[in-house]
Amino acid sequence: MKRIIAATLATLALQAGAQQAIWDQNPTTSPEVNPDGSVTFRLLAPNATTVEVNGDFMPVVITDTPQGPRSTRPAASLTNDGNGLWSYTSAPLDPELYNYWFLVDGLQITDPSNAFKVRDTNITFDYFIVDGAQSELYQVHDVPHGTLSQIWYPSATAGTPRRMTVYTPAGYEAGTDRYPVLYLLHGMGGDETSWSQQGRAAMILDNLIASGQAEPMIVVMPNGNISMQAAPGETSAGLVQPTTKLPHTMDGLFEEAFPEIVSFTDSVFRTVPAKQARAVAGLSMGGFNAMGISRQYPGDFDYVGLFSAAIDRENGQSSPVFQDKDAKLASQFAAAPALYYIAIGNEDFLYDENKAYRAKLDTAGYKYVYVETDGGHIWRNWRKYLADFARRLFK
Amino acid sequence: MKRIIAATLATLALQAGAQQAIWDQNPTTSPEVNPDGSVTFRLLAPNATTVEVNGDFMPVVITDTPQGPRSTRPAASLTNDGNGLWSYTSAPLDPELYNYWFLVDGLQITDPSNAFKVRDTNITFDYFIVDGAQSELYQVHDVPHGTLSQIWYPSATAGTPRRMTVYTPAGYEAGTDRYPVLYLLHGMGGDETSWSQQGRAAMILDNLIASGQAEPMIVVMPNGNISMQAAPGETSAGLVQPTTKLPHTMDGLFEEAFPEIVSFTDSVFRTVPAKQARAVAGLSMGGFNAMGISRQYPGDFDYVGLFSAAIDRENGQSSPVFQDKDAKLASQFAAAPALYYIAIGNEDFLYDENKAYRAKLDTAGYKYVYVETDGGHIWRNWRKYLADFARRLFK
Repeated sequence: MKRIIAATLATLALQAGAQQAIWDQNPTTSPEVNPDGSVTFRLLAPNATTVEVNGDFMPVVITDTPQGPRSTRPAASLTNDGNGLWSYTSAPLDPELYNYWFLVDGLQITDPSNAFKVRDTNITFDYFIVDGAQSELYQVHDVPHGTLSQIWYPSATAGTPRRMTVYTPAGYEAGTDRYPVLYLLHGMGGDETSWSQQGRAAMILDNLIASGQAEPMIVVMPNGNISMQAAPGETSAGLVQPTTKLPHTMDGLFEEAFPEIVSFTDSVFRTVPAKQARAVAGLSMGGFNAMGISRQYPGDFDYVGLFSAAIDRENGQSSPVFQDKDAKLASQFAAAPALYYIAIGNEDFLYDENKAYRAKLDTAGYKYVYVETDGGHIWRNWRKYLADFARRLFK
Repeated sequence: MKRIIAATLATLALQAGAQQAIWDQNPTTSPEVNPDGSVTFRLLAPNATTVEVNGDFMPVVITDTPQGPRSTRPAASLTNDGNGLWSYTSAPLDPELYNYWFLVDGLQITDPSNAFKVRDTNITFDYFIVDGAQSELYQVHDVPHGTLSQIWYPSATAGTPRRMTVYTPAGYEAGTDRYPVLYLLHGMGGDETSWSQQGRAAMILDNLIASGQAEPMIVVMPNGNISMQAAPGETSAGLVQPTTKLPHTMDGLFEEAFPEIVSFTDSVFRTVPAKQARAVAGLSMGGFNAMGISRQYPGDFDYVGLFSAAIDRENGQSSPVFQDKDAKLASQFAAAPALYYIAIGNEDFLYDENKAYRAKLDTAGYKYVYVETDGGHIWRNWRKYLADFARRLFK
């Protein structure tokens, strides 16, 4: 099988490279994950005066101020080798997927040596993975892989087609089985690509299903911004920069329109179209949506996941989704959901309102599962919550 | 339907933004396409000494040198407004999709204000679109949209599953029709995401099909690097940076394994599994692949597209695909393919070998369609060739 790469090939690459000026032109290796879990960042910038790196791998520093303790995450300085090659090696890091960026004379840039980038609303970050137990699920392994599709469904409420991302488990195409469905909702500033990109949902589900930790399931990841047909740049609005400032955010209209998503899914995919085979979960705004959807349609969802959820943050009260909330919640819990799951980090800015919501459920005697982690309102937590929640579904 | 965005929403965004420090923090608008087709680029970089912009929208300059004429594409300088906001407005540009990048004190960076980025092998570029006739097909319009899927197929040749991107036309999921299939192959340095990302294949097909210019068809975009299971970062090899230097490039093994892709496609999708309903086309290395595949399996493909194709650049001669090429070509043309299509730009570095190949076909009396455009070995041409080729298929 092993054959020598002939001169013609090298010539083709060289000529095309000379013409396109894009290939293999940057010999700098960055980032480099070292065996001890430390990471070396490098940037070739001979004319720079200062180069720094920052990201969610850097330690948070708490300082006392007259206004009270203040948490910051200072950048680390890279060192110039004298020839303009700057580098910095971090402390050994816990296994995780981390984002980072460079600051060159104060200007925030992505790493030109790293092809692995991900967009969060309007900012693009580089990322890397430190191997180990916690990051195991976020990596691609040699296991059967599901299919990830971008598919459009008709929305009578929006008056337009809208796009969703759908994960179907390995074996779906060749088989005839029907599957339960997890509806998985993004947060403010996100779209139908967020869970598959930042959330690494396909990797998490592939790995959990292959190891028998989760049941094979379909995961439907719709766009929760009812005023958007699809992610920025993927609609006839053209290349409009992403923003969190969208009409109809958290005003109930997405929840009102949600049955369209369920009926489309049931009509096009081989689902088990029944309450005991449906879950709805989401992060932040998506947790708010999941709470409202499961409360509004109590006969449709047996599993509910609130990940760092916004609680009582209705944007206006005119939607029917926001009428008689307590009575609807009572009906929902009277039918005893198979799982009502609440997860949040102890540094999350929504911690207190989740605590108050739990107290309300406790007072009413409504049963739920509660998971509290370290950290704040970040993807690192939402990936963990998805993995934990998925393991508990459809058993 | 119109509801006021309440204070709670703004508060949520603000608090989350303060925590995540990612949202809406960059108020610079860049790029801005002006009504006359000129484009304004802006970068906030108070500490920079020079800021330049370059990209495929900039004019090429030919200079005489002792070694003969030399073509370069000089960068344009941005001007500092005195407060560190640099800007430059281009001349009016022809309608197209263009790539660009900034050079800050000589360091090549992406535009922090632009969410629309695309990867070409190991480099990430920003892009923008100037509206008009030529770019019409590359934009998303309010037409029925097909589905784009990333799906894995078993490869006995590679001994692993491998990933492909598949476009199914609007109406596929809800209907029962069978469709013809275009197999569309990328070039060296590309992967199964290239045609859907850089090539905007889904937009082109959606628009051509909706306007009746192309027949509804399935488009299968496999990974032509037989040593790769999938795009960089999407396999158990982890986050390995993309490179053109891959084993088994153009050594015949991909062509030998191609029937696996066809039989998987026919088994999983509602195809018309017949020669008159199959096309194979590719760019550069993918054109070389398409030539070899259609010659090796003459009973399988009635439509062949060679876009800026590498011609006789076999990497070693041991593959059966490279044996008796002339006799196989004779058999292929004896069966009179419905379309044998060759397209290339007049500045392409592969122009001369395509000219020689055409002369060979002419001498043998083999019929083909030839399209020559301006320009070189670039995506701008390959998008044009795809649109032109797709219009001619399955009529």
